[in-house]
Amino acid sequence: MVEISMLAILRREMGKGGMSQGEESKVEEENMAAWLVGVNTLKIQPFLLPPVGPHDVRVRMKAVGICGSDVHYLKTMRCADFIVKEPMVIGHECAGIIEEVGEEVKHLVIGDRVALEPGISCWRCNLCKEGRYNLCPEMKFFATPPVHGSLANQVVHPADLCFKLPENVSLEEGAMCEPLSVGVHACRRAEVGPETNVLVMGAGPIGLVTMLAARAFGVPRIVIVDVDENRLSVAKQLGAHGVVKVTTSLEDKNLEVDVVGVFRYKNTWPLCLEFITSGKIDVKPLITHRFGFSQKEVEDAFETSARGSNAIKVMFNL
Amino acid sequence: MVEISMLAILRREMGKGGMSQGEESKVEEENMAAWLVGVNTLKIQPFLLPPVGPHDVRVRMKAVGICGSDVHYLKTMRCADFIVKEPMVIGHECAGIIEEVGEEVKHLVIGDRVALEPGISCWRCNLCKEGRYNLCPEMKFFATPPVHGSLANQVVHPADLCFKLPENVSLEEGAMCEPLSVGVHACRRAEVGPETNVLVMGAGPIGLVTMLAARAFGVPRIVIVDVDENRLSVAKQLGAHGVVKVTTSLEDKNLEVDVVGVFRYKNTWPLCLEFITSGKIDVKPLITHRFGFSQKEVEDAFETSARGSNAIKVMFNL
Amino acid sequence: MVEISMLAILRREMGKGGMSQGEESKVEEENMAAWLVGVNTLKIQPFLLPPVGPHDVRVRMKAVGICGSDVHYLKTMRCADFIVKEPMVIGHECAGIIEEVGEEVKHLVIGDRVALEPGISCWRCNLCKEGRYNLCPEMKFFATPPVHGSLANQVVHPADLCFKLPENVSLEEGAMCEPLSVGVHACRRAEVGPETNVLVMGAGPIGLVTMLAARAFGVPRIVIVDVDENRLSVAKQLGAHGVVKVTTSLEDKNLEVDVVGVFRYKNTWPLCLEFITSGKIDVKPLITHRFGFSQKEVEDAFETSARGSNAIKVMFNL
Amino acid sequence: MVEISMLAILRREMGKGGMSQGEESKVEEENMAAWLVGVNTLKIQPFLLPPVGPHDVRVRMKAVGICGSDVHYLKTMRCADFIVKEPMVIGHECAGIIEEVGEEVKHLVIGDRVALEPGISCWRCNLCKEGRYNLCPEMKFFATPPVHGSLANQVVHPADLCFKLPENVSLEEGAMCEPLSVGVHACRRAEVGPETNVLVMGAGPIGLVTMLAARAFGVPRIVIVDVDENRLSVAKQLGAHGVVKVTTSLEDKNLEVDVVGVFRYKNTWPLCLEFITSGKIDVKPLITHRFGFSQKEVEDAFETSARGSNAIKVMFNL
Repeated sequence: MVEISMLAILRREMGKGGMSQGEESKVEEENMAAWLVGVNTLKIQPFLLPPVGPHDVRVRMKAVGICGSDVHYLKTMRCADFIVKEPMVIGHECAGIIEEVGEEVKHLVIGDRVALEPGISCWRCNLCKEGRYNLCPEMKFFATPPVHGSLANQVVHPADLCFKLPENVSLEEGAMCEPLSVGVHACRRAEVGPETNVLVMGAGPIGLVTMLAARAFGVPRIVIVDVDENRLSVAKQLGAHGVVKVTTSLEDKNLEVDVVGVFRYKNTWPLCLEFITSGKIDVKPLITHRFGFSQKEVEDAFETSARGSNAIKVMFNL
Repeated sequence: MVEISMLAILRREMGKGGMSQGEESKVEEENMAAWLVGVNTLKIQPFLLPPVGPHDVRVRMKAVGICGSDVHYLKTMRCADFIVKEPMVIGHECAGIIEEVGEEVKHLVIGDRVALEPGISCWRCNLCKEGRYNLCPEMKFFATPPVHGSLANQVVHPADLCFKLPENVSLEEGAMCEPLSVGVHACRRAEVGPETNVLVMGAGPIGLVTMLAARAFGVPRIVIVDVDENRLSVAKQLGAHGVVKVTTSLEDKNLEVDVVGVFRYKNTWPLCLEFITSGKIDVKPLITHRFGFSQKEVEDAFETSARGSNAIKVMFNL
Repeated sequence: MVEISMLAILRREMGKGGMSQGEESKVEEENMAAWLVGVNTLKIQPFLLPPVGPHDVRVRMKAVGICGSDVHYLKTMRCADFIVKEPMVIGHECAGIIEEVGEEVKHLVIGDRVALEPGISCWRCNLCKEGRYNLCPEMKFFATPPVHGSLANQVVHPADLCFKLPENVSLEEGAMCEPLSVGVHACRRAEVGPETNVLVMGAGPIGLVTMLAARAFGVPRIVIVDVDENRLSVAKQLGAHGVVKVTTSLEDKNLEVDVVGVFRYKNTWPLCLEFITSGKIDVKPLITHRFGFSQKEVEDAFETSARGSNAIKVMFNL
Repeated sequence: MVEISMLAILRREMGKGGMSQGEESKVEEENMAAWLVGVNTLKIQPFLLPPVGPHDVRVRMKAVGICGSDVHYLKTMRCADFIVKEPMVIGHECAGIIEEVGEEVKHLVIGDRVALEPGISCWRCNLCKEGRYNLCPEMKFFATPPVHGSLANQVVHPADLCFKLPENVSLEEGAMCEPLSVGVHACRRAEVGPETNVLVMGAGPIGLVTMLAARAFGVPRIVIVDVDENRLSVAKQLGAHGVVKVTTSLEDKNLEVDVVGVFRYKNTWPLCLEFITSGKIDVKPLITHRFGFSQKEVEDAFETSARGSNAIKVMFNL
């Protein structure tokens, strides 16, 4: 086990808000966060917040889910091409309560419960301007090094990335908007609807949210494929019209098939909240385990998520 | 009142099937149809059927609805640019039972209950080949002069335009696929879905089926506008999320609005049947009046439909 | 070498036109065609024509190109899943002169020079009706077994698949519309235009026509990749903005890439003719070899095409 | 004639860059601008610049064109719903030379010649995030009250809205990117291309740039309609394939026509520059008159533009 000496240095640059370096928010209590400090090593330690810029809010985190990428960072200190070189706060599926609003923020007030979209894009590059901000090369995304994540008591975030929860949507459901967004974005990109049949390959958390999203988009027949019988049985309970257990990978031989790539998501929170508030999607059954925010519980939670098998979504209640 | 002497001449050319002129189907009983023979004058009289070509079927009509255009033809002998110059069988919203199948027909057998798509396009023009067959300039469409309609005991029709009804869909619901198709086509052209709000202008039969289709496409909020309080109350019962009574016409002042024209429909029957069989759309409440197929009842039915007010869809049971 | 005894049986069913079996066109001279009768064995032998249906034309072939698939059939008696089980007339890239028109044909007269689109689709299946007729499972396509091809003195073909050549377009250029169509369809499916950069993988005939089509669609920068220096030099002469010689295959690592499948083409002849007549595309430099229609020349032509290297398009002048 | 006492107050809020109120750029000479101070009254007077934020640049204006909306503001103090309530610097079609760059600007250096996109959108609203930033309700657009324009010696502008001119593109051509953008955006929205015929209604400056853009998008046939014979003759010279002189307005009676609204433009500058640098579009013939930047010349220039008739684009050289 490698351990890196922890340096509670603020690394998250704010894309908006004009923070001057050296300034700090006036937060009386100490803000604690779960820092990834080495392979298999998470530590709850202080996390200094940047000042709240005119278009920012300060949010008290209430629900944070564990994503497969979080586990991957913990086990290997990397994910795809991103490498953790310095201690980093982990976590990016989250919801909380507004505690402070910047002076230019008009659509949120203190006390509002919000779900957070984790990525801050530059809005100056061609991809942002063309509406494909999820592909922004300057993206600052929670817990994607070197940007800090949101498994913390509080974070400061642009207000336009905080979406107010309808009354009948819980903070945990708010946090679930993040993984659900991946399924929603995939459904949008594939243009599924009442005239499409859908085959989902893989019944892990992302396969399951994709299935739920496809149902909400009106897809009349969804079949889900996996190698794990347990996962398929969950998929069936969650509404798959058919499940197929396979042992080998599938090969494609069709004509004129289009393969559409999907990277994260964009503009998905309002639709996720619409689906959840209207009852078209119920994400609650996906939450299989809950933990508090102590050093011991954080370690246990990640261990539970890493073991996989019967855990779908592991959630922290802060 | 003008009356034209009735000539029971077969006027419907068959786009497919290679009928030789002069030949006739071997149908023992006499086939009767409702002929529009002059302003305000419908007569039930014999209607000779063409032979059943290799790709055709002969259908015993069981349910035929009255459309606003049928009433318009009856009152004025014209509709838009189409003028009735010779006696014409009326009717185009229909469903029935297969009694004879052409030798090349593979997907239907005698006894199948089917809904009929009323237009036969040429499949040789650019519009047909581009998949916009509803705009085919050579279209032969039931009860659009000089083509005969389907308010008759039997008709001969291309098998590929006859769609087998699922077990839980009635013949009347099959006939309703025709008006419903207009709503479905409008929703497709407008690309409505879970992310669209819809305002329907007018709560007549087409406004109502458009609202039903929009609901089935997953539209979360539909408001319908009319000048008639009774119609709005029906719209509310059928699922409109909001209704607005207006007294004057609306004017549009928005930016970058797209206006999308809609003419009839294309490829809609399978989706209509999917919506009806799955329960996503219930067309039964739209059928407000039913009539048999006698001279007296045909006259009464059209009179009921023409009066409008409390009639939405008037249906013949043959 | 396997040889199959030749049976001059008409195998091409006509999708339209209602030919009765046993009937024949009144063509005085004997119609000869190039029959594939076994591996590496082509024989010029008589080919009976079907009668000219009301929507058909009879065309005297004047220019027929050799496609890679023709060569493949010759060498292996198969191509993809299609297997030649009985003698078959080869060839499908063709243009000729109208010699007879069916009684319902309105847009063509005897003497018109036309390019032929080789596939007859059913127009009764869902794919045809949705405008994706190139994917029709009932497609009857020149020289795709068991359907005969067009390397013959004459063929009978639906008139709507015969496109009149503008005055300044030669019959050879007409025949080139077939391979060019593949490039045009690919460009359409990929939605290329003045805002797209294009990388073409492979500088064979299809790579080259795709490059020419992309130029005509206004693509400002096209790079073409191949392992063969000679082909790349041709690509450069034909207008590629850049060429890249590679030795190994390329691997894709981008985000959110879409892969769009392409099968043959649809509705491409009018656009190909527009591109050629306006000078936006010059297909003439692709024709590197010409042959007459004797037994010896047919054999030589296919041998030339099979050797590849310096042959791009081998053309018969009949 | 109404005259308003001029108040050289900075009114243009900067959407990006975090300017503190009261600060000013260090520009030694006095920056002069053309202020609209009342109906028919323009005055060249001092214009204080805001500080150059980290993502901003300061540009010395070199070419500014007069738009119909500028003339309209001058004549009526309003345009559509926008009303000039306080003195406002006019002008928005412009290009110039970079004189100062903010510390975060990476793609521009002092001395670069640039064309300016005039609108600064908020990048926080749904429309911006969906890539339709031209519809942003918080848009700050040159010379749209209460935002100042760019007919001035210098302006400060976000660097991402300044597009470097290729070597062979002049500053005047750079300024022409603004009106050309309207045509490009219309062509994109209408999805014109090599398969579209285009009818342009009106041969004023916007009709002409739309025609030029349609040509560059590969449209094979463009007809332009106007009531003025002189304008039609210009359209013909600029490349219209056909012109039609009309005396009354046209009425639309087609089927299934789509009407697509167009508001300003988005993401058009790179494509405009591509079209101009490659020679696909030549905007120079549109510039019919040139003026310097004295009080007298500004008045004369606007008078020339207002008279219309033989003026297409009136350009200032500063």
